[in-house]
Amino acid sequence: MPHYRIHLEYDGLDFHGWQIQPGRRTVQETLTEVLTRLDAGVRVRVEGAGRTDAGVHALGQVASFALQRDWTPERLRRAMNSHLPADVHVHAVMQASPEFSARASALWRRYRYQMLRRPSPAGRRTHHVLLWPVDPEPMQRAAAHLVGEHDFSAFARLHPEVGSRCEVFEARIAADAARIDFEIRANRFLHNMVRRLTGVLVEVGRGRLQPADVGEILATRDIQRGGPCLPPHGLFLLEVGYADPAGVDGAASPP
Amino acid sequence: MPHYRIHLEYDGLDFHGWQIQPGRRTVQETLTEVLTRLDAGVRVRVEGAGRTDAGVHALGQVASFALQRDWTPERLRRAMNSHLPADVHVHAVMQASPEFSARASALWRRYRYQMLRRPSPAGRRTHHVLLWPVDPEPMQRAAAHLVGEHDFSAFARLHPEVGSRCEVFEARIAADAARIDFEIRANRFLHNMVRRLTGVLVEVGRGRLQPADVGEILATRDIQRGGPCLPPHGLFLLEVGYADPAGVDGAASPP
Repeated sequence: MPHYRIHLEYDGLDFHGWQIQPGRRTVQETLTEVLTRLDAGVRVRVEGAGRTDAGVHALGQVASFALQRDWTPERLRRAMNSHLPADVHVHAVMQASPEFSARASALWRRYRYQMLRRPSPAGRRTHHVLLWPVDPEPMQRAAAHLVGEHDFSAFARLHPEVGSRCEVFEARIAADAARIDFEIRANRFLHNMVRRLTGVLVEVGRGRLQPADVGEILATRDIQRGGPCLPPHGLFLLEVGYADPAGVDGAASPP
Repeated sequence: MPHYRIHLEYDGLDFHGWQIQPGRRTVQETLTEVLTRLDAGVRVRVEGAGRTDAGVHALGQVASFALQRDWTPERLRRAMNSHLPADVHVHAVMQASPEFSARASALWRRYRYQMLRRPSPAGRRTHHVLLWPVDPEPMQRAAAHLVGEHDFSAFARLHPEVGSRCEVFEARIAADAARIDFEIRANRFLHNMVRRLTGVLVEVGRGRLQPADVGEILATRDIQRGGPCLPPHGLFLLEVGYADPAGVDGAASPP
C-alpha cells in the first residue's frame, strides 16, 4: 500500500477540532470520508501531527495515511481539494515511507497565539481581543523562562497516561501597536498548553504577575497556579518539523 | 443639535452593504437603530462616506450624524460599541461642525482589493482566490494607466444622474509569493468600479491583455470592454480623507 504525507490548512471555527468524535464535524473525519470515497471504499486511517482542539486553526498541519490505489501526489492533491469543503485545503502531497508517521515522526510543532490590542470585526475570527492595556516587553521576558525542558503540569489538565515534560526550543512575543503574537516551538504540547501559557503571559503584560513568576508557576506543577485558558480562535498550528522536510522520514531515507 | 463624526470598521460578510434597504440587514440601518435607541428615540439620520456593497468590508469607514442629546465623544463611543453587534466596531468618535458631511466633505477614498495566489481557508472571507497563475509586474504597469482624471464608464453600470469622471491619485499593486493587493485612492468611485478594475488587472496578469490595453478600454467608455466584476469579499474601504483629519471640516474651523 502506498503511503502519503500531506500538508494542510484549515479554518477551525466550524470544526470540533482535529480528532474524530461521534456525531461531530472534525477535520480528521472530513479527511477520512473524502479519502475513503476517492480511494477504494476501504476506510482510510488518517493520522495527524497535532490534535488541535475545537475552534483552533491550522496553517501547516501534517497528516499521514496509506491508500489502496497508487496515486500520483499531484492527482491526489487535486482530487482531495475538489472534494473537501472550503474550510480545509491541502497545500502539498508527498509520497512517504511506510515508517513515516505524521505524529510519531514529528520532531517539533510551532504554534502562534494571536491577540489584538483593540477590537476588530475583521480580525475577530482569528484573534483574541485583549480588554485591558498590555505591555509586551515583560511578556517577552516572561516567555524566555519557558525555553528549555520543563514539567508543564501547571499548564494542562493531564491525562494520566501521558507525561508532562516538554522541551521548548523557542518562545517569543512579537508586537506592534495593533497586535501581540506569542509564538512557541516545542517537541510536544500538552492539552490546552499554549492557550494557558498565553493566559499567564497576558497577566504579566497587565502587571498582575512579574516575568519571573512564570518560572515559579512552572515549578509548582499546580494547574491552580497556571493562567486562564484563552479562547481557541486565536490559536494557529503553524508548522511541524521532521528529520526530512521532503517527506521521507529519517529511518527510511537512503543511508 | 450636536454633530458627530465616527470612524468604524465592519466585516461585510453578513451585511447587505452600507445603505438602508427595506427588510435587509445593512450597516447604515444597524447604526441608525443603535443611535436612535441610545439618544432620544428620534430616528437619527446617518450619512456614510462610502456606500459599500453587500459583502464589502471596511476598516476605515466614516459616518456623520446629529443627535438630540449632548454626548462626550468617549461616552458615545463606548455606548455604541456595547450595543453594536460583533461585526461592527466604532474606533473613534469626534465632535463635528454642523457643515461636516461624511460623504460631501470627503476629498478622497482609499480601497484595497485583496487576492490570494493559492487557496487558503484562513483567508477565504477576506480575499479572492486566483485560479490561474498571475504575474503582478504587468498588473502594476497597467495600474499606472489609471492615475489621473478619466471617464470610468467602462468600469461601472452608470446611474444616469451621476457623472462618470473620477480623479485617481494613486493605483498600485503589492505582491508577494502568497498574495496580490490592488490599492487605489481617488476622489470618488463609481458602482463596482474597484472590483471591475481589478478584474481587468487580473486579465493583464494572466497575459490575456497588455498593460496598455487598460488605457484603451478606459477610452472606449464601454462597459462591455471592461473586465469581470470580481466578488465583493476581497474589497476593503481602508480610509477616507478630509481637509481636516481631526474631524472638523475646513468651512467650520476657526479662521
